[in-house]
Amino acid sequence: MAERFRTVPFRTQRRVEFRDTDAAGIMHFSVFFVAMEEAEHALLREVGLSVHQKVDAHIVSWPRVAADCQYRSAARFEETLAIDVQVDRLGEKSVTYAFRFTCEERLIAEGKITTVCCELRPGQPPQPIAIPAEMREKLKAYA
Amino acid sequence: MAERFRTVPFRTQRRVEFRDTDAAGIMHFSVFFVAMEEAEHALLREVGLSVHQKVDAHIVSWPRVAADCQYRSAARFEETLAIDVQVDRLGEKSVTYAFRFTCEERLIAEGKITTVCCELRPGQPPQPIAIPAEMREKLKAYA
Amino acid sequence: MAERFRTVPFRTQRRVEFRDTDAAGIMHFSVFFVAMEEAEHALLREVGLSVHQKVDAHIVSWPRVAADCQYRSAARFEETLAIDVQVDRLGEKSVTYAFRFTCEERLIAEGKITTVCCELRPGQPPQPIAIPAEMREKLKAYA
Amino acid sequence: MAERFRTVPFRTQRRVEFRDTDAAGIMHFSVFFVAMEEAEHALLREVGLSVHQKVDAHIVSWPRVAADCQYRSAARFEETLAIDVQVDRLGEKSVTYAFRFTCEERLIAEGKITTVCCELRPGQPPQPIAIPAEMREKLKAYA
Repeated sequence: MAERFRTVPFRTQRRVEFRDTDAAGIMHFSVFFVAMEEAEHALLREVGLSVHQKVDAHIVSWPRVAADCQYRSAARFEETLAIDVQVDRLGEKSVTYAFRFTCEERLIAEGKITTVCCELRPGQPPQPIAIPAEMREKLKAYA
Repeated sequence: MAERFRTVPFRTQRRVEFRDTDAAGIMHFSVFFVAMEEAEHALLREVGLSVHQKVDAHIVSWPRVAADCQYRSAARFEETLAIDVQVDRLGEKSVTYAFRFTCEERLIAEGKITTVCCELRPGQPPQPIAIPAEMREKLKAYA
Repeated sequence: MAERFRTVPFRTQRRVEFRDTDAAGIMHFSVFFVAMEEAEHALLREVGLSVHQKVDAHIVSWPRVAADCQYRSAARFEETLAIDVQVDRLGEKSVTYAFRFTCEERLIAEGKITTVCCELRPGQPPQPIAIPAEMREKLKAYA
Repeated sequence: MAERFRTVPFRTQRRVEFRDTDAAGIMHFSVFFVAMEEAEHALLREVGLSVHQKVDAHIVSWPRVAADCQYRSAARFEETLAIDVQVDRLGEKSVTYAFRFTCEERLIAEGKITTVCCELRPGQPPQPIAIPAEMREKLKAYA
C-alpha cells in the first residue's frame, strides 16, 4: 500500500469529532466510511465536479456498490487525520477510490469505495452509463 | 411533566446501540432527537400515517421547526429505553409532540418536537397547509 | 452466497429509519455497517454474551479490524430489512461475521466484519487474546 | 437574536456533507446538535481548553443538560454554514452556549446547549463543580 501512495495526488484532513467516537473511546468503525465519502466529495469539488450534478439534461450521480476498510490503529477525539485519496481503478462505468488515513506517522486505516456512474430519471432506478468524457479526464489525474 | 403523562397513549422502545454511544460511555445527546423522531414515526404508522405520504395529488410532509431536550440521567449501551409520546399541541398547521424517555423507573430525558404540515411540490419550497381532517382526527387520539 | 446461508442460524430485523436515509432517498451506505454491528450484538445477546463484558478480572472486548459491504439494491425509508448473520470464520483470536440484508425476496446487501478478541487493561492498548472457551463454544453454533 | 449577535466573538464553518442529509434532501434536524457541539469544542480549543481534560488530578468534563434548536430555513448538500457561538449564560457550575447558523445572508437555525461542569471519578456519576477560575476567565471573553 505504501508503494501505491508514494505520490499523493489528493490529501484532505478531518478532525475526530466527539460524535465520531463511541463508548470504546475511539472513532467508530462506521465513521471511516463517512469520512471516505467526504474525502471523495472533496476531491470531486477540487476539480469542479459534484457527486450529484446535472450533465446535459440529466442528473448524473454515483451510487456506491462496494466499500471496505481495514483498521490498523485507533483514532481518538480531537486527533486530526490526514486522508490520502487515489483513483484506484477507472472503469468504463465505475470508479474505485482508495483511501489511507494517517495521524502523523501512524497508519490508522485503509479502505476503498467503488461507485458506478448513473443517470437519474424521475421514477426510474439509477441507470449505469459510461463516465462522461470530461469527468473521466478529470478523474484520470488522480489515478 | 409527570401529570401530563398520567395516561400513556403511545409507548415505544429503543435499545441503546453501540453507535449511539460516545467516548463519555453514554448515549450521545444528539441521538435523543433521532430517537424522538423514530418514536413520532412509529406513532404515525400506528394510525396508518407516514411522515411523508401522498394526500390527493400531493405529497404531505412534516418539516421540523423546533426541537428541544432536557437530559436527566445518562443512558448506557444495551439499556432499553421506553419512549412515551403525546401530542402536546395540535395547531391548525402544526403539531408539537412531547416525549419522555425512561429506563425502568429512572427518568432519562424529556423533549419536544414541533412539525409543520406542508405540501411538497417539485421545485418549490414546502408550503404550510391546514392539517388534513383525517390526519387531524387520528392525531387527536394522542392529545 | 446463497449456498452459505442455506441454514439461517440467526436472523434479526431493522426498519430503515428516516435518519438512515440521505438526499438520494435511500439508506446511506455507511449505515449498513452500523446495522451489521447491531445484528452482531443481537446475536451475542442471544447467547448471553456482550461485545464488552467482564471475563474473570478483565474486560474482554472485540475491536473491529476489517469490514466490507457489497450493495445490491437500494433500501428506502420505512422498509423492514431482514439481516441474517453467520459466523463465517472462527479463528483462535478472531471472528468474522457474514451478513445478508434482504427485503422480502430482494437482496439488498452482503457484508462482513472481522473482530479480534481483546483484553482491555486501563491505560494500555487492547491486547489480543485467545477467545475464551465458553465464548468459542457459543459462537460455534452460528458457524 | 440579531441584537445578541451584533458582536461575533467566535465563528466557525461547517460544510453540509452528504451523510448530514436525509431523504427530504436537506440537513437532518438532529445534525444541527452535532454541529453545535463541534462549534463549542472549536471555541474551547481556540482558548486552549478541551471538553474533556485533566485539571489538577481529575478529569473535568461538561455533560449536556439541555439543548434546543429552531429551524428557519433548510440547508442543502455542499452548502457551507457559518456558525456563530456566544456564551449566553455563565453560571457558577454551568454554561449555556447560543449558536446561530447562517448561509450567506440566509438564517438557517438558532439553538442553545447548556452544559454543567463536572468532575469525573472512576465508578462514580459525574459530580457538578464550580467552573475552575482559569476556565471561567477564558469563557468570559465570549459572553
